[in-house]
Amino acid sequence: MDGRGRDGPRERLLRAAQRLSYAEGATVGVQTLLREADVARRSLYEHFGGKDALLAEVLRLSAAQDLAAITSAMTAAGDEPSDRLLGLFDHLAEVLDGPGFRGCRYLAADLALAESTHPAHDATRDYRDGLHALLLAELARAGHPEPERAAEQLLLLVEGVLATGTTRPHAQPARLARSLAEHVLAEAPPRGRTASSTA
Amino acid sequence: MDGRGRDGPRERLLRAAQRLSYAEGATVGVQTLLREADVARRSLYEHFGGKDALLAEVLRLSAAQDLAAITSAMTAAGDEPSDRLLGLFDHLAEVLDGPGFRGCRYLAADLALAESTHPAHDATRDYRDGLHALLLAELARAGHPEPERAAEQLLLLVEGVLATGTTRPHAQPARLARSLAEHVLAEAPPRGRTASSTA
Repeated sequence: MDGRGRDGPRERLLRAAQRLSYAEGATVGVQTLLREADVARRSLYEHFGGKDALLAEVLRLSAAQDLAAITSAMTAAGDEPSDRLLGLFDHLAEVLDGPGFRGCRYLAADLALAESTHPAHDATRDYRDGLHALLLAELARAGHPEPERAAEQLLLLVEGVLATGTTRPHAQPARLARSLAEHVLAEAPPRGRTASSTA
Repeated sequence: MDGRGRDGPRERLLRAAQRLSYAEGATVGVQTLLREADVARRSLYEHFGGKDALLAEVLRLSAAQDLAAITSAMTAAGDEPSDRLLGLFDHLAEVLDGPGFRGCRYLAADLALAESTHPAHDATRDYRDGLHALLLAELARAGHPEPERAAEQLLLLVEGVLATGTTRPHAQPARLARSLAEHVLAEAPPRGRTASSTA
């Protein structure tokens, strides 16, 4: 928005694709996207080169928003790495309860787009690498003896929460995963004895 | 097969849909299905009433096969409930290494088919209820103090393994989840002291 009217075609396309590719799936049709964005087909090609690149850009945009929200939730949970990592699961509980939740956007895109060279897969890989880096940094700070492995375990729990949130929400998956995450964190030295303080 | 020639149209449709709805996704087109099955459109409607019901039937067929394979792997792992439940994760490691693996068929269908009334969702729910029942029976036999909750935790780990197997196979997700499953099982009384023997 420039304050004087509605967004331009690029922003309208991004917003329409972000909503529809989640609500209806990554295989949503080009016509549906153009209609919701109220833009001409030419704009799609001018701004993104095509639907594949638009979807990839939506995933990069969503990843930046989601990782910022996760970072913010972890920061709000305090300074202790274990509190911050468990805070991620409290954040996921809120995400699952949010309006229109229907699973992990990144996994859904990977599963829907069978073509391995689709640019969306690069965007989803970058998202997971970004989340992995956030988790790894906290685990290293906690002095976890196997931070790489533990970060992959927490990522696996995050995937499990988002999948189960779609299919068995009554099971309260974020709580179930939080208590499994506590086992992962229990392998780190007790509070106060971090890697740096014992070095 | 009747031993005298190729399968009939119904079987060819099921086989084509089982392969393509996994390899290309549940949004695979009717034309593609008919071409691969080498049947006329009329056969699809005669035998299934349409693509939606065909997809649901494929999911029921796959669920029966997958639950049979899981039961078989658990049986091969021995008589102790904990061995049998950990055997499930060893089985998943083999599934992930199998040719053409690309995630959980049931979750992919749920994510791809946004319409909540699509009959595929009933089939995927029945699959998960069936797996939950298998897990619950073993946990109850092990004398786990919270078998319902533990079964949901193991299901969440299964979802996490299948998702991560698609997106980060190098992390060896079945192994990561197996060690988390050991924490779930550790809440049960020690070997030999099952619920029935302490009653």
